[in-house]
Amino acid sequence: MKAKVGLITLGVRDLARALRFYRDGLGWPTHKYDPAADVVFFALEGTWLALYPRDKLAQDARQPDDGGGFSGITLAHNAPSPEAVDAGYAQAIAAGAQGVKPPQKVFWGGYSGYFADPDGHLWEIAFNPFMDLT
Amino acid sequence: MKAKVGLITLGVRDLARALRFYRDGLGWPTHKYDPAADVVFFALEGTWLALYPRDKLAQDARQPDDGGGFSGITLAHNAPSPEAVDAGYAQAIAAGAQGVKPPQKVFWGGYSGYFADPDGHLWEIAFNPFMDLT
Repeated sequence: MKAKVGLITLGVRDLARALRFYRDGLGWPTHKYDPAADVVFFALEGTWLALYPRDKLAQDARQPDDGGGFSGITLAHNAPSPEAVDAGYAQAIAAGAQGVKPPQKVFWGGYSGYFADPDGHLWEIAFNPFMDLT
Repeated sequence: MKAKVGLITLGVRDLARALRFYRDGLGWPTHKYDPAADVVFFALEGTWLALYPRDKLAQDARQPDDGGGFSGITLAHNAPSPEAVDAGYAQAIAAGAQGVKPPQKVFWGGYSGYFADPDGHLWEIAFNPFMDLT
């Protein structure tokens, strides 16, 4: 698995408020911003940042969003193909990660799974045919 | 403020276990690894990753580590000087962030403060004279 974090996703309770903070307040550049979408990407030097509704992020990562168990952050490792996702997921499990969501086709058109590292930190491992963060 | 996340720090309960996972399991490269230190850095393409004892990370970010309130993750924005830390902190507060720890000289020899974004996600803003992640 390539040594790279492709994307940090912050779960947010008010997307407009969070957008104002990062885009207007800090001045960070969005990537293909679409007001109708419920996700916002920031094209940063280094790892990119995304904002996504916290309840949907919890659902995507199969976590309860009860204020306690879910950290509200996921890190993503982006792989160049579905097969590379499968291989990376298997490598993580073999290394001691807990399987959270086996790699599968997902609603946004990619192929993605989640595992938890030994401390429960959530990692998505994803193939995204639309945005290359590998 | 430059649009960059310089460092992701994961709070861990067992540093040796987490090191085995990321270094030996995933094969990611450490940076100047020192077995006597309680922090491990990984030099990644894009944003770097660090492992640090969860209780110490909570303490550094002035969070209760009661299993509920603290996400166990901090993101860092690295600035090129103490003055740039002050300016970035002020910009974040003006943009609606909550001040958590005003910028100050810290034990590891840098200058650092913490703020929380509108959803409570913790950001450190730091000048590190020893490692340039700006």
